[in-house]
Order: sequence, then structure tokens, then C-alpha cells
Amino acid sequence: MTTFDAQQLAAESWFQSLRTRICAAFETLEDEGAHLPALPNAPDAPGRFVYTPWDRTDHSGAPGGGGRMGVMKGRIFEKVGVNTSTVFGEFNPEFAKGIPGAAEDPRFFATGISLVAHMANPQVPAVHMNTRFLVTTKRWFGGGADLNPALPRDDDTAAFKAAFKASCDRHGPEHWDRYSKWCDEYFFVPHRNRMRGVGGIFYDWLNVESDADFDANFAFTRDVGETFLAAFPAIVRARMGLPWTAEDRLALLRYRGLYAEYNLVYDRGTTFGLKTGGNVDAILMSLPPEARWD
Amino acid sequence: MTTFDAQQLAAESWFQSLRTRICAAFETLEDEGAHLPALPNAPDAPGRFVYTPWDRTDHSGAPGGGGRMGVMKGRIFEKVGVNTSTVFGEFNPEFAKGIPGAAEDPRFFATGISLVAHMANPQVPAVHMNTRFLVTTKRWFGGGADLNPALPRDDDTAAFKAAFKASCDRHGPEHWDRYSKWCDEYFFVPHRNRMRGVGGIFYDWLNVESDADFDANFAFTRDVGETFLAAFPAIVRARMGLPWTAEDRLALLRYRGLYAEYNLVYDRGTTFGLKTGGNVDAILMSLPPEARWD
Repeated sequence: MTTFDAQQLAAESWFQSLRTRICAAFETLEDEGAHLPALPNAPDAPGRFVYTPWDRTDHSGAPGGGGRMGVMKGRIFEKVGVNTSTVFGEFNPEFAKGIPGAAEDPRFFATGISLVAHMANPQVPAVHMNTRFLVTTKRWFGGGADLNPALPRDDDTAAFKAAFKASCDRHGPEHWDRYSKWCDEYFFVPHRNRMRGVGGIFYDWLNVESDADFDANFAFTRDVGETFLAAFPAIVRARMGLPWTAEDRLALLRYRGLYAEYNLVYDRGTTFGLKTGGNVDAILMSLPPEARWD
Repeated sequence: MTTFDAQQLAAESWFQSLRTRICAAFETLEDEGAHLPALPNAPDAPGRFVYTPWDRTDHSGAPGGGGRMGVMKGRIFEKVGVNTSTVFGEFNPEFAKGIPGAAEDPRFFATGISLVAHMANPQVPAVHMNTRFLVTTKRWFGGGADLNPALPRDDDTAAFKAAFKASCDRHGPEHWDRYSKWCDEYFFVPHRNRMRGVGGIFYDWLNVESDADFDANFAFTRDVGETFLAAFPAIVRARMGLPWTAEDRLALLRYRGLYAEYNLVYDRGTTFGLKTGGNVDAILMSLPPEARWD
């Protein structure tokens, strides 16, 4: 029998409640933009999330938790996925080597939220956000959020970064420097010699070795979620009514090619998930609804 | 100074002449289909190949050969790339470990042709073909061709396989069994639990340890090229006039998503090339002009 402790339950519960609030905020944007022109294949009515649960069988053959995939194909959000999952079991030995605290004991627990939004209007940036709590013989939080515009606007980039800088500054004097740089490095696409997006934050291995650590790192992770929830919808609201041209759309589709390349070639979560039998639909919800390489 | 021997020159010359004949055959198909309805963004006139040379700097910093990328964006061929390259230098030590004959001496030479065709009409299968001659302290031929229809037709699959079976049978009693199975295994997409395409042939490490080996394996590799040149245009010619629906096009775009996934996640040539600084445009010419994940 698997039992969860108070830290695990608190983290899971937070990720699920954040999901619910983010999805509600995104559906509100669909309502607010109902009068705006939409893509030819968009639905007539404002989009709504469709939630699909999935179960996981562990490497060991035992039940291994699962998740809930939320997908909305709307008029403002061409395709957005918001997934929550809580998985547990034993890492396979090969993978365990690379995970802090798993070499000694392969058992693990992971709970988190993962979000990628691809927007219909090329003037609205795509976005990625993911936060998670991992437990092996060690425990840690990780996560991040980055803005991925096809047509970058300095004011959106500045607003997004300012929000996360303020969030970081509430939790530590070096957080912003460290985690904004980590984001730029992590989301770099070597074969294109460029960043995937325009930045944000990325952090990992925020170790929990005491109750005080848990409180501090969980508070930071919650703040990242709150910051995303405040910052991204504001950008969407400001941009979703802007006119765009066929050329802008083409630029968007080509940019999404780069986005797909990054996720399929480099993203650790994607490639690990695909190669080790994760839930394919949930893993690949990050891929763009439409992309071009031409 | 780099010098090539007679085997290297003969192989390079074959790959280049095969390229020229294939491109001519594809341009003829564009002419023959000039009256057919085309995609909205297709050119008004039949497509023609545009050739772009590229140079390679070796891992060691020295000149390392290069290639010629041929791309046609036409009315029948939505996007087709036919690349030839002749590259040489020293493998980096990490990569050399995995290459026959390179652990002892990292110097290498490789010449080959690589082709991927994405067709406008969903009734016409996409196709991949690649043959190559490698030289380290060992020498070998490798290659393959496989059919990648979004809407598989048994008769096309049978015709394509029959042609390569006949070709294999001219060179060895076990060639077809062995190389058709290898194709099915190599182009398997584990996370989708399916083959990328419907089959063909794949072979590698056809060792050249004598002049007789070279003659036999080069003859087989030439036959693979000739067989492709006879078989694929015949399929295109038979199918390019068939009507198709918006639903067929959608099936094609979704199938191309799978094709891109395979090439970016699993294809050894693509991922190695991207991660080690190959010519990005030439490597990624295999990606579809348009794809959907929705």
C-alpha cells in the first residue's frame, strides 16, 4: 500500500488547485475574446477545458499513480494543455543513477503541474510553466516558466520578467539572477544557436532537508504559480485583440517548428517520458497544434 | 592534404549522378502534373530544385568537406530534399567509440545521398531514401528506403516492396528477409507503438574487406538507388491525380507529426547531426513542410 505524507499531500493539493484556477482564468479569456475574429477551424463558442484522467503502471508492474490531462482548443487559445500528475513507484535502475537520492533506493514520488499554451493570434506569446515536488531518499522542488513569442515584444518580455523578478525577490536575494540565467541556459537550442523563447525562470533541486526548507521552497513554488496566474493572462488580455497578417501567422507556424524541435530533441521531460513509456498524450500535449518547416 | 582513393571517388560519383537523375525524374513529375489542382500556397509553375552548397569544418578545425542540398517546393512535391555530401576529418572521441573501426583511429570519410519527399496530395505516400559509403579503418556501405503514406494503400506498399525484393534477390538469397525486417525494426516508433511507415529496406555495415566485397556491395547499393528511381515515381504518377478531401489533408498533417517525432526523437542521423554541429538546414530538410498535433 502506498501512503503519502503531509508534504506530499500539501504539494499535490496545491498543484491541483492552481490548475483549477489557471483553467478558469483561461476560460474567462475565451469568454472575453468571444467577439474577436478566430481561425477558420476554431470553434464557434468560447473554448472550454476537457479533462482526461490517465493511470500509470510502474516500471515494477504495480499501480504507479497517474494524472489528469486538461486540454482546451478554443478561439484565443488555439491549443493549451494543463496537466497535473502524481506518480510513484520505482525508477528503473538505469534512470535512477541520474536522480538525486535514487541510486541508494529507487523508490520515488513526484507530483506537479505542467502547462503549455499555443495561442491563435501570433501577437500573443506562447507560454510554458511547470512546477513539481520530487521525493526519493531526498526531496526537492523544481519548476519554471518562460515566454515563447513568435513575434517578440519588448514590453511583454519586460512585464513577464518583472513579475517573476518580484516573485524571486520576495524569497531570496539571488533567486532572480540565478533562476533567470538558468532559464536562458536550459531553453537554449544549440542547433539554432538561439534561445527557444525570451526568458523567464527555471529552478531545480531546491532541497528539502527540514520543515523550514519545505515551507520556504513550497512558498516560493506557490509564488511562481501565483505570479504566472497574474502575469500571463494580463499579457493575453492586452494582445489578443491586435490585428495580425497572414505573414504573422506564417512566422508563428515557423517559430512553432523550432518549439517542437526543442521539445522533441532536448527537453529532458519529453524525451525521458517518451523513451520510458510515460503517457504519450500527456507528454506530447506541449507540441503545437500546427507547425511549418518550409 | 586530403586525397580520395578510387573506391571513395567511385561511390561519391555514383551518389551525385543518382541525385541528378532522381531530381530530373521528380521535375518531370512536376511537369506531368502541371494541370492538377494544387495547394493554395503552391507555386503557379511546376517546381524546380534549388541547390545550395554547404561546407563543413571538421571537429579538428580543419576543412571537412561539405555537400549540396537540393530542395524543391512544387505542386506535386510539397517539399522534397535531395542532399549529397562528402565529409571527412576526425570523429570526436566520444562519437568514435560507437563507430566500427574508429576507436583505433578517429579519421573518417563518408559520402552519400539522402532524400525525403513530402507530397502535396495525401493520396501519394511520402518517402525516404538514403545510401552511403563509410571509411574508417574499416569500410562499409549502408542505406535504405521506406514508404511513408498517411493513407496506406496495399497496392502501393506491395509494389514498393516487390521492387526492393527483386533488387535484393539479385544480390543474395537472404538480403530481402534480413533488410526488410531491419527496416521494420529501425523505423519503429516506440512511444506510438507503431512503424513510422509501411516498410521497405534498411541495411548497414556491408563490409568492404576486398575488391570483390566493394564490387558486390557497391553493386547492391547502386541497385537500391536504381530501384528507388524506378519504383517511387511510378507510384507518384499513379496517385497524384486522385481527388482528396480536407479530411485526408488533416490525416496527412497529423501523420507528418508522427514523422517529425520519429526524426527528432529517434533518428540517429538527425539527433547526432543536431547535437554535433552538422549543417542544420541539410539535416532538417527531412521535416515536413506542415504538420499538426491537435
